[in-house]
Amino acid sequence: MFSKDTYIKRRQQLCKDVEKGLILVVGNSDVAFNYQANQYTFRQDSTFRYFFGYDIQGLIGVIDVESGEEYLFGEEVDMNDIIWTGPIPSLSERATEIGVKNTGNIKDLRNLIDKSVFAGRKVHYVPPYRAENVEFIADLLHIDYRFVQAYVSTELIAACVKQRSIKSEEEIVEIEKALDTAYTMHTTMMRMAAKEGTYEYEIAGTMEGIALAGGGPVSFPIILTTHGEILHGHDHSLQIKKGRMIVSDAGCENVMGYCSDITRSVPVGGKFDARQKAIYESVLSAQLLAAKLSRPNVKYSEIHLAAVEQLGGCLKELGLLKGDIHQAVLEGVMGLFMPHGLGHMMGLDVHDMENYGENYVGYDKKNVRSTQFGLASLRLGKELQEGFVLTDEPGCYFIPALIDKWRAEKKFMDFINYDEVEKFKDFGGIRIEDDLLITKNGCRILGKPIPKTVEEVENEMAK
Amino acid sequence: MFSKDTYIKRRQQLCKDVEKGLILVVGNSDVAFNYQANQYTFRQDSTFRYFFGYDIQGLIGVIDVESGEEYLFGEEVDMNDIIWTGPIPSLSERATEIGVKNTGNIKDLRNLIDKSVFAGRKVHYVPPYRAENVEFIADLLHIDYRFVQAYVSTELIAACVKQRSIKSEEEIVEIEKALDTAYTMHTTMMRMAAKEGTYEYEIAGTMEGIALAGGGPVSFPIILTTHGEILHGHDHSLQIKKGRMIVSDAGCENVMGYCSDITRSVPVGGKFDARQKAIYESVLSAQLLAAKLSRPNVKYSEIHLAAVEQLGGCLKELGLLKGDIHQAVLEGVMGLFMPHGLGHMMGLDVHDMENYGENYVGYDKKNVRSTQFGLASLRLGKELQEGFVLTDEPGCYFIPALIDKWRAEKKFMDFINYDEVEKFKDFGGIRIEDDLLITKNGCRILGKPIPKTVEEVENEMAK
Repeated sequence: MFSKDTYIKRRQQLCKDVEKGLILVVGNSDVAFNYQANQYTFRQDSTFRYFFGYDIQGLIGVIDVESGEEYLFGEEVDMNDIIWTGPIPSLSERATEIGVKNTGNIKDLRNLIDKSVFAGRKVHYVPPYRAENVEFIADLLHIDYRFVQAYVSTELIAACVKQRSIKSEEEIVEIEKALDTAYTMHTTMMRMAAKEGTYEYEIAGTMEGIALAGGGPVSFPIILTTHGEILHGHDHSLQIKKGRMIVSDAGCENVMGYCSDITRSVPVGGKFDARQKAIYESVLSAQLLAAKLSRPNVKYSEIHLAAVEQLGGCLKELGLLKGDIHQAVLEGVMGLFMPHGLGHMMGLDVHDMENYGENYVGYDKKNVRSTQFGLASLRLGKELQEGFVLTDEPGCYFIPALIDKWRAEKKFMDFINYDEVEKFKDFGGIRIEDDLLITKNGCRILGKPIPKTVEEVENEMAK
Repeated sequence: MFSKDTYIKRRQQLCKDVEKGLILVVGNSDVAFNYQANQYTFRQDSTFRYFFGYDIQGLIGVIDVESGEEYLFGEEVDMNDIIWTGPIPSLSERATEIGVKNTGNIKDLRNLIDKSVFAGRKVHYVPPYRAENVEFIADLLHIDYRFVQAYVSTELIAACVKQRSIKSEEEIVEIEKALDTAYTMHTTMMRMAAKEGTYEYEIAGTMEGIALAGGGPVSFPIILTTHGEILHGHDHSLQIKKGRMIVSDAGCENVMGYCSDITRSVPVGGKFDARQKAIYESVLSAQLLAAKLSRPNVKYSEIHLAAVEQLGGCLKELGLLKGDIHQAVLEGVMGLFMPHGLGHMMGLDVHDMENYGENYVGYDKKNVRSTQFGLASLRLGKELQEGFVLTDEPGCYFIPALIDKWRAEKKFMDFINYDEVEKFKDFGGIRIEDDLLITKNGCRILGKPIPKTVEEVENEMAK
């Protein structure tokens, strides 16, 4: 954990921003895997971890905004449990460690809530995403469980987003540790991908093992596929074959819970062919341009548009597009090749704070999400600020179902050379992703550089 | 998946055994990790997988027992989804693959259930263990979600236990594949444990990576600890030090969902000292005796007692116990050293069918669970039958809190040499586990033999 002061200051700031009422922060519990006693590896709620530090099941934090009183609730360990668990600190010892004065069990929590609500005070909570926590809040606040999402606190969401969006130096240190592990994951992938015939799951499993051996879980289910054009896919069942690109999108959480999120795309066998190299370098030029443009007070939606325009220019040179590329981008042509956004915030969550609602994190009153196919998928559109950590991850995909659909609809015939695009239907996809820290005057690519140019990738694959 | 016939026969047998009503088999959905779109790796419900085969989210199977009509319910893929997911079979194509005739969406399911319940028919379901499925059943059957567990079908549980307890040859093949992976996991652990200073999580993470690279998840969160005496612990935070034993209890699921569950205990550094060797060989002799005694029509509770008596005899030779060991076992003395049971059923779940309720699986009317400390923790007490797969996993632990408690209570002073036992308070624990198939006249240890004798373990660790 960080020092006691870190958590105290974070909670004090929260009190200032929320102004009144009670703040309820429900930590996570275990989730059953295939029966009650066999559980998925525990994953703490990020809001709880940010303000109350502990990576432990069954804790609830409460802050009384007006009085400043803070509480840590949970069940004390029974002396008989110690036979099975070994020595365990008491709840009040735990509370002291994070600068919280008051402790109690769940019954005490109920009493505090009842007393406060009967006195007409509001209880603030952020949107729960686990059914167990929905039921817990429903029960505690006397809400039908189907209505718990309806009563979340937008004040609390805004206050959490405000703090968590700006990463401190100590948070950056942790993110870079997670990137050290990601370095090993992806360079291992590259060496394994050199050998045709390996199964995707062998590579993905080995990468996940590296994450776990580094002390944390993967930050999201690994995408490792020779069908990079399938964007919503976690299948790892195929044998890798020469002629296909592998898209490897994977990161980890470190022991402090901070994430990394890296994508590399590499040719099975270790050598890019001419077509792969051309598309790869197109994506890479868009990715480098986005990093070059990332600095405070620039809207990330504009950087997204600049990156896809860069990609579009390259595709025009390859004969896939025609006409005025700037105009093509404005009209939404690039959605055919890159239906997703350029990037998203990253921190304790790989899509940081996504449980609060994407638009609370990536947009604001001045910057409203687009509805245009492609740009609509951009999670972060607002102006960047110093201290933001975000991903820069353009891609280029040839999605047969989408090409067929657009061609049948005669979409953008003035911009798209469908006959040329059709030739790439067997190509798959490419994505390249790094994690950026917005600095005072620009940005810094976090972590030790992971092989990225065609030459660097081929060299790593030859090892 | 197995052949269509396998699933058809299993469902037909289920119909015969349940006799009347509707059987509702709810498959699992994704569970949120830290926000709705970031999910734990999917794990199908074992009952669904056994009868309906698919390892896919959001499916529900229904069998009308009287008419024999079978249904597969789920939501059809939207044509627009194919852009993101690639080609996906239709629900009716999936149903055909497993010999099911009827399909429908969730609304159709509601209609079928309403019609049946209004006609006075019972809907059978086994106990759900995920909050999402509890809420789904609550909503479908118009039950308050807090009462869903109260209305589970004991007829359906009994019918499932009857079939799933007896493993077919094709199931044994799958279990042995999971054991091949477990072999690699544990021999890798042995080689890593030879090096003092490694962190437990580095070894555990590498083992989990081997499981994943083999195509399935771990069958339960890996236990890998130099504090084997902490039985309910999944902490992996320590550096391994010479003088400590590592207890490594880990297995995996293979691509078909079948489990392995193996424990090996090895000395950090690679060489057993005299005390470690003495306790290790005591546990091993109990483990070998249990396998020797395992055959049809013998109660596993009796084998448990024989194994702990064997262990007790060894501990007497080491001066830790005194008096009549047979009598000591009957009185419950061995709970001090082995507070857990000798083993449990294994199959699609590592504790097979534990979501139905342990006593439905491991006990019956003739064999009621003991309440004696130690024996009370035995999950499988009833008579063995040909085709059972179960674990044989005795252990010996020196649990400081338990030793202190019993000594303070002056428990079993005639049997326990507390002064001698106290000397082992820094020892930790040892457990040795294999998976057995009950055969016509005895049993077979499944899988390729994993180093187990002192000599074999030391040789592997020296590699």
